[in-house]
Amino acid sequence: MKRVAIQGIPGSFHDIAVRQYFEGEQIQLICCSTFEDVFENIKRDPTVIGMLAIENTIAGSLLHNYDLLRASNTTIVGEHKLHICHSICCLPDDDWSTLTEVHSHPVALMQCRGFLANHPDLKAVEGEDTAGSAAYIQRHRCRGWAAICHADAAEMYGLKVLENHIEDNKHNFTRFLVVSDPRKADFLRPLNASRKASLVFSLPHSEGSLSKVLTILSFYDINLTKIQSLPVIGHEWEYLFYVDVTFDDLTRYRQSIDAITPLTKDIRIIGEYIEAQV
Amino acid sequence: MKRVAIQGIPGSFHDIAVRQYFEGEQIQLICCSTFEDVFENIKRDPTVIGMLAIENTIAGSLLHNYDLLRASNTTIVGEHKLHICHSICCLPDDDWSTLTEVHSHPVALMQCRGFLANHPDLKAVEGEDTAGSAAYIQRHRCRGWAAICHADAAEMYGLKVLENHIEDNKHNFTRFLVVSDPRKADFLRPLNASRKASLVFSLPHSEGSLSKVLTILSFYDINLTKIQSLPVIGHEWEYLFYVDVTFDDLTRYRQSIDAITPLTKDIRIIGEYIEAQV
Repeated sequence: MKRVAIQGIPGSFHDIAVRQYFEGEQIQLICCSTFEDVFENIKRDPTVIGMLAIENTIAGSLLHNYDLLRASNTTIVGEHKLHICHSICCLPDDDWSTLTEVHSHPVALMQCRGFLANHPDLKAVEGEDTAGSAAYIQRHRCRGWAAICHADAAEMYGLKVLENHIEDNKHNFTRFLVVSDPRKADFLRPLNASRKASLVFSLPHSEGSLSKVLTILSFYDINLTKIQSLPVIGHEWEYLFYVDVTFDDLTRYRQSIDAITPLTKDIRIIGEYIEAQV
Repeated sequence: MKRVAIQGIPGSFHDIAVRQYFEGEQIQLICCSTFEDVFENIKRDPTVIGMLAIENTIAGSLLHNYDLLRASNTTIVGEHKLHICHSICCLPDDDWSTLTEVHSHPVALMQCRGFLANHPDLKAVEGEDTAGSAAYIQRHRCRGWAAICHADAAEMYGLKVLENHIEDNKHNFTRFLVVSDPRKADFLRPLNASRKASLVFSLPHSEGSLSKVLTILSFYDINLTKIQSLPVIGHEWEYLFYVDVTFDDLTRYRQSIDAITPLTKDIRIIGEYIEAQV
């Protein structure tokens, strides 16, 4: 059985991502209130696995999670891309005609703005959580209340789904990273099958320093799938780069890292893993 | 007098950014409830200027605002970097001993977690807005309530500041862009003095396509200050790049754009402006 730490409760998007990624496996969820706690759990017990959102196609990167990842002693062992879709659900006895309020996380409400505009009779109320709103309605038998959450969360809390896919944007994906203590990484992914890596390094703020690094990577047939620069706080003339690469040949990739290392500062491989398919 | 559209109310961080950027000028604020409305206002009346947050050193880029900017027909004419600092304030008759609740935007509450942990007697309550919480306390004379907001918002709403700089992270900056109808841009910034530009272009997902573009920029002595890749939704093998560059010579920069254009797709200059100092 795997023990997986997430930020959130059962039925949250983190939990859905865990269920999809570890499909068919026995999972014990460790529900944390913060992302810091997720890393704390892994630190205390190296057999714990973490799963955390890292970027969203609409909202962008979660820079704070990048920071936590870099500061922690964990490594990425996998990734999962989750289609973010929302459903509206309520107690089995309720129906469209009896509903007065709809509860959810502010971001979820925002992502269903079009739907809510078409239901002006429903008062939108901000809650702490998508799954949490569903849980609350079930626990307190809130007649007339609906929740917006993932369809799986509705099922988990015994609520009736009135409509699926009520989100405005159908192309909303969140990418999650699976992280672990480096000593446990080999049990969690076959290193030899890894065709994706995440790197972080800093560069002096001088013309062409990044182009040199990327040119070398291209000479080694390494593909760039993501690049993000961040100013280094307190060092105004230095930048930190988060780069994701894919490759066909693990040896060639390793050679390319050796080749760029002297041109970078503090380069760290934060994971080598199998690329997620959508 | 300049009319500036922002998302937010007087005293919000957008308003503070406007006051600092246009220091000494007469400003009429147009308060919008969404960023879409900001662009709508400029579209309806080309003399309206917009100001919008684009990235934060902790939370990262506001990708949605990049999208709106790209979709709109506006151009960037300036930028402003605002130090995000929070104060706790209350009605003049209240004091530490009489306070029971503290209201603010969820993000502001999160940014003051350390402070709140040291005041376990204060119940943190999520509000819609930082300045909005201050305005509410003043309007409804809420005894025993405090707000967390910018010190200027406290002053604006006649509240007493109990403590400044209660944020956990002292290096929290938000970068704002000043945008306008392109026909009005020359009245708002001297083009010849511009030493910074923002570009957006797409590239095929092939090895080395980005390194070629960056190498050419470095040959022309163009500095990269920010780079961010985004997958193009619906075109899985294409990437969109948002790039900020700085340069010493406007002509040389223009030549570099001519040189990279044939290697890119849909390149667009979304602004040429004067770089903000912190």
